[in-house]
Amino acid sequence: MAMPSTISFLSDYGLVDEFVGVVKAVIRQLAPDTGVIDISHDIHPHDVRAGSLTLVRAIQYLPDGVVLAIVDPGVGTARRAIAVEAGDDGMILVGPDNGLMAPAAAILGGARRAVSLTNTSLHLSAAGPTFAGRDIFAPVAAHLSNGMDLTEVGDLVDPAGLLPGIVPLTRVEDGVVHGEVLWVDRFGNAQLNVDPNDIVDFGAAVTLTMGSVVRTAKRADTYGSIRGSEIGLVVDSYGLVSVCLDRQSASRELGLAAGMAIDLSEPTDGPGGPPSMGVVTPVQLGPRRAD
Amino acid sequence: MAMPSTISFLSDYGLVDEFVGVVKAVIRQLAPDTGVIDISHDIHPHDVRAGSLTLVRAIQYLPDGVVLAIVDPGVGTARRAIAVEAGDDGMILVGPDNGLMAPAAAILGGARRAVSLTNTSLHLSAAGPTFAGRDIFAPVAAHLSNGMDLTEVGDLVDPAGLLPGIVPLTRVEDGVVHGEVLWVDRFGNAQLNVDPNDIVDFGAAVTLTMGSVVRTAKRADTYGSIRGSEIGLVVDSYGLVSVCLDRQSASRELGLAAGMAIDLSEPTDGPGGPPSMGVVTPVQLGPRRAD
Amino acid sequence: MAMPSTISFLSDYGLVDEFVGVVKAVIRQLAPDTGVIDISHDIHPHDVRAGSLTLVRAIQYLPDGVVLAIVDPGVGTARRAIAVEAGDDGMILVGPDNGLMAPAAAILGGARRAVSLTNTSLHLSAAGPTFAGRDIFAPVAAHLSNGMDLTEVGDLVDPAGLLPGIVPLTRVEDGVVHGEVLWVDRFGNAQLNVDPNDIVDFGAAVTLTMGSVVRTAKRADTYGSIRGSEIGLVVDSYGLVSVCLDRQSASRELGLAAGMAIDLSEPTDGPGGPPSMGVVTPVQLGPRRAD
Repeated sequence: MAMPSTISFLSDYGLVDEFVGVVKAVIRQLAPDTGVIDISHDIHPHDVRAGSLTLVRAIQYLPDGVVLAIVDPGVGTARRAIAVEAGDDGMILVGPDNGLMAPAAAILGGARRAVSLTNTSLHLSAAGPTFAGRDIFAPVAAHLSNGMDLTEVGDLVDPAGLLPGIVPLTRVEDGVVHGEVLWVDRFGNAQLNVDPNDIVDFGAAVTLTMGSVVRTAKRADTYGSIRGSEIGLVVDSYGLVSVCLDRQSASRELGLAAGMAIDLSEPTDGPGGPPSMGVVTPVQLGPRRAD
Repeated sequence: MAMPSTISFLSDYGLVDEFVGVVKAVIRQLAPDTGVIDISHDIHPHDVRAGSLTLVRAIQYLPDGVVLAIVDPGVGTARRAIAVEAGDDGMILVGPDNGLMAPAAAILGGARRAVSLTNTSLHLSAAGPTFAGRDIFAPVAAHLSNGMDLTEVGDLVDPAGLLPGIVPLTRVEDGVVHGEVLWVDRFGNAQLNVDPNDIVDFGAAVTLTMGSVVRTAKRADTYGSIRGSEIGLVVDSYGLVSVCLDRQSASRELGLAAGMAIDLSEPTDGPGGPPSMGVVTPVQLGPRRAD
Repeated sequence: MAMPSTISFLSDYGLVDEFVGVVKAVIRQLAPDTGVIDISHDIHPHDVRAGSLTLVRAIQYLPDGVVLAIVDPGVGTARRAIAVEAGDDGMILVGPDNGLMAPAAAILGGARRAVSLTNTSLHLSAAGPTFAGRDIFAPVAAHLSNGMDLTEVGDLVDPAGLLPGIVPLTRVEDGVVHGEVLWVDRFGNAQLNVDPNDIVDFGAAVTLTMGSVVRTAKRADTYGSIRGSEIGLVVDSYGLVSVCLDRQSASRELGLAAGMAIDLSEPTDGPGGPPSMGVVTPVQLGPRRAD
């Protein structure tokens, strides 16, 4: 059974306007045998960082093929439109050169080849320059999904010259882990850029400092083992430390939002108990998992 | 023409995060010939009752195959992950054992066989235990869609031991039908757990009592036959009594929400006229209709 | 490679309830080889005008086949359910006869044949008359997608007797272009019913009058060339004049919403500079573009 081709599609187009539907309509006419998987289209408008992190969380699970990623505040300006071949499986990412796709490409194993989408004969003509998803990215993604070689959609450019993505790193200082909220999910869980290893020497209780707010959290293996009004620190399904309540929104309770600073430290009034088992699970963002 | 296989997918994952896309990506890699139909992913977070009722409304219209249903506040705890074969057409429901799928299974004709998803060799390994949709339910649904037998995905369990669903029943007392709002749809129509037969002896005018609010509704065959500011009682497309306005939201006008109590009775100031024709249409939630 | 059949689907059903999923489930059982493309399902409830304009923006890019369009405040009343064959490519539009599909049919080249969906043997039986999408439109669209002739789904009616759509026209008077906001997109850009040719004699600066609010806008080729707090007038990707800010919502800044009146005129304090290049791009809503 031959694997059918797939375009995995992420954007900030939303689902209210017809943008996503029109992009898919263009793809269907040019690559009728390709299936499209929607990763998300509700990235906050123009939020390249959020789109980039969403791609990072999804990338290991996507089928081989093309990833179409459009969060593009510079549409119609001099920013380049690019396609990047990354990793050993021939995965190709198509989108703007604004850092959006860089962290995902790195996880796949790094960019092998990249092109600027200069072959305008593949693009749709349009009345205005503002819908690159429909007029440039969709037809290029469709042709690549049909097997067209990267060099036919544009001119090779040096992958080292692509705009890098911004991945916030933690900083450890005087026993304090200075972290940041990467993402608040639908359930109000706040994923931090904190590796369980960063807090492996802490006790079961951890002090969270968010601006002037100071709270104590308890490490937990599952949401369900967090009791009543406790705040839990759970290693989430991506291997990162996440601030959670049981069946309630930690984000709402603690006022957490993506991009906010959060410090983790040991309570000053004495050591906590031994750490629970779950928190030492290593982060596994490297190799692809869903094969 | 062989019928292609289908997974019908319901969840409370929302469409903002990448959860739904990642589940579909996992399915596509394991069962590339299976089509996925989204029933809804905007079940209110953790609202097992709402998910269960949405499944009930949809189940008769779904293609034979697998139903993947995930509203799972107990993810990662001791609650079982299960697959249930229901009815005569070999329909299989995959999800948590928390009552979510029980009413739909009953409508299909009842559970024939059930398994606990204990064959972990089919699951994806993960850094943390919080995304069972991706790591457990998606691969199992994909394998079942490919034709794998139920007994290969886990150990048989007694269907009688599965957690039952909660379906609110009406109670009739002294001529008053004590009902409940099951569902408020996008248009503000409020479906009640009231069968037209429950109010067959009432006149054309019906008194609605919602807490301290008392209003008079008029039976109507269509939304369009409700006039101006009238409140209509319409037998909806599922065969249940629904509180409606014409082109306005009955929910907003009357403050109705899912789960609220509502009493139906005859106006005390005298009998109304004869009932309109539509309201005696029988409920048809039993046999599947869309074959 | 034979082109697979496609149903392009637009509605005001939203994605919270199961309406869209059930319509697709019915289609899949009757036309399993047909792919469905979602144009949008978040048309504001009952907003026929908005649905109609969304169809107009998308229609040129949709694959040949069937368009299923449901914004239907009169569901269950005497309004007709229809299928309309439009243009030279055999495109068929299925939906209510309330003007929703008329402008799109006109863009395709006009209605060739139309039928009222009177062949009830194709419809699903239902407990109540309120879900025509599931019971009437979905099965008819599926059969047409399978190649059934238009005349088999109902009785021919005169296309000239179909309800026309309402497309707001601009009016030019004493050098003032009296326009209207057609659409505010997710990014807050406000598309006007103004052709660039309507303002071709204006200078680079244009006065916008919205009720008592008067602001000066500058013509721009791209969002990115709008500076800081400037208001831009951009010819958008549909060839119409659009009010935009750079990376901010013009709708929020100026209080613009679909249907609002907006006047464009030259500043009274003197002529502006020469018009920028982009604004003379002609509107291209006629021929289909994505072939």
